[in-house]
Amino acid sequence: MKIAGLTLILTLSGVLSASMVDEAKKAGFKPIPTDEKELLKLIDNRENPLNSAKIELGKRLYFEPRLSKSNLISCNTCHNLATGGIDGVESAVGDGWTTNPHHLNSPTVYNAVFMDRQFWDGRADNLEAQAQGPLQAKPEMAISKEMAVERISSMDGYRDEFKMAFGDDNITFKRIADAIGAFERTLVTPSRFDKFLAGDEQMLNNEEKRGLKVFISKGCSSCHNGVGVGGSMQKFPLLKPYKYASVGDFKGDKSGMVKTPTLRNILRTAPYFHNGAVWDIREAVEIMGETQLGVKLSREEVDSIVKFFEALDGELPDVIYPKLPAVTIKTPKPDID
Amino acid sequence: MKIAGLTLILTLSGVLSASMVDEAKKAGFKPIPTDEKELLKLIDNRENPLNSAKIELGKRLYFEPRLSKSNLISCNTCHNLATGGIDGVESAVGDGWTTNPHHLNSPTVYNAVFMDRQFWDGRADNLEAQAQGPLQAKPEMAISKEMAVERISSMDGYRDEFKMAFGDDNITFKRIADAIGAFERTLVTPSRFDKFLAGDEQMLNNEEKRGLKVFISKGCSSCHNGVGVGGSMQKFPLLKPYKYASVGDFKGDKSGMVKTPTLRNILRTAPYFHNGAVWDIREAVEIMGETQLGVKLSREEVDSIVKFFEALDGELPDVIYPKLPAVTIKTPKPDID
Repeated sequence: MKIAGLTLILTLSGVLSASMVDEAKKAGFKPIPTDEKELLKLIDNRENPLNSAKIELGKRLYFEPRLSKSNLISCNTCHNLATGGIDGVESAVGDGWTTNPHHLNSPTVYNAVFMDRQFWDGRADNLEAQAQGPLQAKPEMAISKEMAVERISSMDGYRDEFKMAFGDDNITFKRIADAIGAFERTLVTPSRFDKFLAGDEQMLNNEEKRGLKVFISKGCSSCHNGVGVGGSMQKFPLLKPYKYASVGDFKGDKSGMVKTPTLRNILRTAPYFHNGAVWDIREAVEIMGETQLGVKLSREEVDSIVKFFEALDGELPDVIYPKLPAVTIKTPKPDID
Repeated sequence: MKIAGLTLILTLSGVLSASMVDEAKKAGFKPIPTDEKELLKLIDNRENPLNSAKIELGKRLYFEPRLSKSNLISCNTCHNLATGGIDGVESAVGDGWTTNPHHLNSPTVYNAVFMDRQFWDGRADNLEAQAQGPLQAKPEMAISKEMAVERISSMDGYRDEFKMAFGDDNITFKRIADAIGAFERTLVTPSRFDKFLAGDEQMLNNEEKRGLKVFISKGCSSCHNGVGVGGSMQKFPLLKPYKYASVGDFKGDKSGMVKTPTLRNILRTAPYFHNGAVWDIREAVEIMGETQLGVKLSREEVDSIVKFFEALDGELPDVIYPKLPAVTIKTPKPDID
């Protein structure tokens, strides 16, 4: 009897301690795999398979300012790996100090690999396709495909790196974007929430668990779920108007669908929303309650949800800053006009 | 006799092989010390003593875009550690995409510690004093002292880092610049030429040695010498007019003195001259022959000197890209107008 009672207690405590994790899983959350092979399977792209040479080349190109018309802007300018993968301004600023014509905010590159689609209107299938956009966009890096290839081809070393990454030394615009995409696929940030989802309930403190409960019960996790804690296309605004809709003119894709941003590292990526109109995470949560769920969240509920966000703060990968090759006499000159 | 003969040959060969090194030393070149204590003595600033916490804080602040009015520009924007410590444009571009009003080129931060003075007109005594300039300059980072302190003070973690670096957690504008200066002091790039100067004559190949001979015999080393292979204030142009003098309006300090740029990593730091008017290192060498030495260097002499420059290409220090703190509700917002 005594032994049976002990067993019962252990079983019950096991059930209790697993319950919150199970609830989170039932709500659709998935952890970033800790197993390297499993992670690789999740982040890889069959059409642009990862290899270490390609990732290293991609890192170099990600930081490569000569990939902009002016020589002054790199991918890292708007998706700064030092500051949560963003630029810290409401609306992206690019070539000629031009702000994004639709007042669109730069989404974080960290964990972008987990998004179903790329860009706020989801018009790119994956990171490789996305990378081709800002390189060429006039208000961003403003370089032509031809100029990008000419610049990179003119500098010593890159040809060998393309050979190691792609099997031959052909430098094409697509490969430039593919290498950048490959690097970006590695920018994932495992957090305490992942360890929690993997079964270690102690990784979230009680306040965070309360926040997670509110987050699930209010319905936030119906869109912010999966490995990305976001990433699907959703109608926005859904139930009530977005109070800052007049900032910029973005209305989503043809059907008014907008990509759900990841909530991983959300406390590092202010300002919020597609138009960067909100700096305070509490206000952002309140607005989401209204526009998407049609509820007025209490002050306590908002605070509790924000507490949960602390558990989504991930470990950023270490990045050794690259040493890029010098321009040569053949390198096309920058154009800052 | 035989033994004496052998001794004589060995001695002669010793004299011969040492002679080029001696000649270089006589011309005023000095190596970057390999001994850590000696190096520290050379790069340290008694009024802002180096320590590892200060260097690490300085690195973070060097890459800190929130130290600009816009949140978009850091020290690294114009002195990019990935591209030889420069920006690769003729004239620096800063806040609001404003080009330097005097069309001044951003000098490399690498080995800047070895320069006698800072800025093209030498108006700053040292790196700490220099760092205060671009932070505040309207066409550069355009931040006020007060705003810089307010931004940094508002973010988590910095206060502790200042305490570790300076002994107490007082965050001041001077300390921000002092930490940046401390980091910059560590950006030295030992090269084959240093090993050569330390006695290993084999570190330069014959072409480079020939180039060094031309460099010395033509008089280039009368200004480009010391550990910095440059760094003193000199009259420019001295003997003949500078053919691109009309680009910008810079005329040096009150006496027409201009800081001699370092030639370390010179093959990585195009475009050349204070106004960045020359992209081709060969043309730059030709012009220097004319304006400063009053000689027309032959094509062969120019090529030979440029060969020598290859030996000045140094090993850039490894830099782990920083992970900076998130803004808080208290952090003053960026202003991109």
